[in-house]
Amino acid sequence: MARRTTAPPISWLMQLTLERPGLISLAAGFTDDETLPAREAKAALTELLSESKSSRIALQYGSTAGDPTLRRLTTERWSRQDNNPPWTQQIDPAKNLLITNGSQQLLYLVAECLCDPGDIVLVEDPTYFVFLGIAQSHGLRCRGITLTDAGMDLAHLEQVLEDLKRSGGLSRVKFLYCVSYFQNPTGRTTAWTVKAGALELLRRYERAAGHPLYLLEDAAYRELRFAGEDVPSTLTFKQAYQRVIYTGTYSKPFATGVRVGFGWLPDALFTPVHRLKGNHDFGTTSLLQQLLVRVLESGQYDRHLEVLRRRYAHKAKIMTAAMQETFPPRVTWLTPRGGLYVWGRAPRSWKTGIGSRVFEQALQQDVLYVPGRLCYAKDPTRRVPQHEMRLSFGNASDGDLRAGIQRLGTVLHAAGNA
Amino acid sequence: MARRTTAPPISWLMQLTLERPGLISLAAGFTDDETLPAREAKAALTELLSESKSSRIALQYGSTAGDPTLRRLTTERWSRQDNNPPWTQQIDPAKNLLITNGSQQLLYLVAECLCDPGDIVLVEDPTYFVFLGIAQSHGLRCRGITLTDAGMDLAHLEQVLEDLKRSGGLSRVKFLYCVSYFQNPTGRTTAWTVKAGALELLRRYERAAGHPLYLLEDAAYRELRFAGEDVPSTLTFKQAYQRVIYTGTYSKPFATGVRVGFGWLPDALFTPVHRLKGNHDFGTTSLLQQLLVRVLESGQYDRHLEVLRRRYAHKAKIMTAAMQETFPPRVTWLTPRGGLYVWGRAPRSWKTGIGSRVFEQALQQDVLYVPGRLCYAKDPTRRVPQHEMRLSFGNASDGDLRAGIQRLGTVLHAAGNA
Repeated sequence: MARRTTAPPISWLMQLTLERPGLISLAAGFTDDETLPAREAKAALTELLSESKSSRIALQYGSTAGDPTLRRLTTERWSRQDNNPPWTQQIDPAKNLLITNGSQQLLYLVAECLCDPGDIVLVEDPTYFVFLGIAQSHGLRCRGITLTDAGMDLAHLEQVLEDLKRSGGLSRVKFLYCVSYFQNPTGRTTAWTVKAGALELLRRYERAAGHPLYLLEDAAYRELRFAGEDVPSTLTFKQAYQRVIYTGTYSKPFATGVRVGFGWLPDALFTPVHRLKGNHDFGTTSLLQQLLVRVLESGQYDRHLEVLRRRYAHKAKIMTAAMQETFPPRVTWLTPRGGLYVWGRAPRSWKTGIGSRVFEQALQQDVLYVPGRLCYAKDPTRRVPQHEMRLSFGNASDGDLRAGIQRLGTVLHAAGNA
Repeated sequence: MARRTTAPPISWLMQLTLERPGLISLAAGFTDDETLPAREAKAALTELLSESKSSRIALQYGSTAGDPTLRRLTTERWSRQDNNPPWTQQIDPAKNLLITNGSQQLLYLVAECLCDPGDIVLVEDPTYFVFLGIAQSHGLRCRGITLTDAGMDLAHLEQVLEDLKRSGGLSRVKFLYCVSYFQNPTGRTTAWTVKAGALELLRRYERAAGHPLYLLEDAAYRELRFAGEDVPSTLTFKQAYQRVIYTGTYSKPFATGVRVGFGWLPDALFTPVHRLKGNHDFGTTSLLQQLLVRVLESGQYDRHLEVLRRRYAHKAKIMTAAMQETFPPRVTWLTPRGGLYVWGRAPRSWKTGIGSRVFEQALQQDVLYVPGRLCYAKDPTRRVPQHEMRLSFGNASDGDLRAGIQRLGTVLHAAGNA
């Protein structure tokens, strides 16, 4: 495993950002510095550590699955978002919920639990590049499913499943990974009908696969919505809860320095994933779980979320306005309605990868982005597109967003004229 | 992996403790409630979140390897404990140090990095049972090395290495796991000469193994010393740093609700383990790292540690005095000089495992301990001893320690008379 595991690009990009203070980073998924909830966290922690009972819970070990109150609050919150889907009334919803160190850990645990080296995972094309690192490290093969503006292209998903069935590969497929809200990296949200179709297709191929085909719905950005309506999760479909792994996080909507995520798991997966979590760390740190209990109960979490939503709406507007103004007209993008990213698409012949002229010149100009190609799985059935870039409006200040995009605009104009 | 992974007994025991408030638990490794550093943590967090720079660092993502200041402080602290061994002046000590979610995560990462299913790990007999869970989950085989009062029996270690060499198994041996200070579960500390001998033996068999044989030194309880002198770590031996993985934790000496550990890794292992950590969670939560920076720098950590040491000395004394008073004379133990555990040994014919009369009667009397057999690896070359028990004085109150031991004494007398 160690020999197989390559350096994750996120670490390198994050490291670069931390080490070069002059650099304007539109790359790593850091969140907004100005709205970090210092006042809210201080108030909650002070309260928490002033009472003997709550401070004892916060400073002592807890259980592997997570704090019971946080699990209850998480269940209630999520049920509300999905308008209390009927099945949550039938089974004990807290039973299948695991608290993790950010949703990242849940992704890791699921891959570890479901897959052997050589297995196949279906991913969006492009997808969250850290997930590709996990897959690569576990020796998994990925097949990319083309994205449309409404999420996965169902015709392509069907074609891939059919191909795999024909070639005998279907028995190695374990799950489909879908970043369903304001996707990292493209900002796209999966439509409800697409979720329905994907679930239906997976179900249809189960018999040929010989085992369940799960859908791993990564809803990390769901709460960071600043335009449009929420879309119900895949869990709302009838009986879907036995095939859907749903993961979310409190880190991005509250503070990325407070790493607490969660995952909702089908009965068949909860026990093994829970055991693996026990081996990893026997439980997420209590202090952070209690901090979240407190801000969720007091309403501070929701008030802070409103601040964040307004702030990211503002920053997304600054970024896209600057792009409109300074990028060559042949570079296009989708206006984000949530999340942290704008996905820029240059003409196909303009390369944006590490080592490309655009990337190197941008670095010379002290501006960093995530090359789009890093977000594509190694899938031998298609060429990796080289002409895209993930631009994050999460961390940079308003001024840096404008300056960074302007510099990048200059670099892209030069590329267009080359 | 999921099929292979069994339920970790620690989770079950911890769950039982959390769910039955009437139960006196001398089982799980929870720490003392009365000395939890609520005041210290509150003061440090308030300071931290009152300044804009420090609160930004605390509430934002950091790097995968850990906060640079915490890594520097950890290096300095550890070097001081070892009287600044010469090699720390020659190489950049922060380079090989990884901050993890408790030292547990480091144990997991090392097993994941070094081992394939079917590989062999040498462990103390008995050893930390959660590590056995990690090994089992990864499909590793364990060989137990008999413990003496000074640590591993070197003659037995040599015999096991020789056996493995002869049977062709040596090429599957990856490392030796040693809980070197106030060992969990027996409370024993490995003597300096035993460490030297173990390293020497591993080195001698490297050629036959065909690859490095590492020593994983788990120093989780090193700071919880309340009697006797400190023993230098294995890292103090000449050139040992290329064969030693040293792991420690801030959780037990500060607060178990603040899960931060660390690991010192040889050059050849740092990069792959760092990458795996990137896939697990790309870095331990910043808020807790900054809390530790603050209490380490202010001296609060050390002042709190003094309180803890006095407290555990006191609790160990209460426990052993009660054992002296109420246990049948045929049950023996080693007086602890640190850590959280007393290892009780009944006569060989008295069974203490889950399902045994002693365990069930103890549970009926509302007292829980860790059956000694859980701490023994599945090693086909010897029978698992059934007559021991790990008794923790960490969490129970003074009164509960006395009452719990008294109840257990009654159960053990009955066993003796049966």
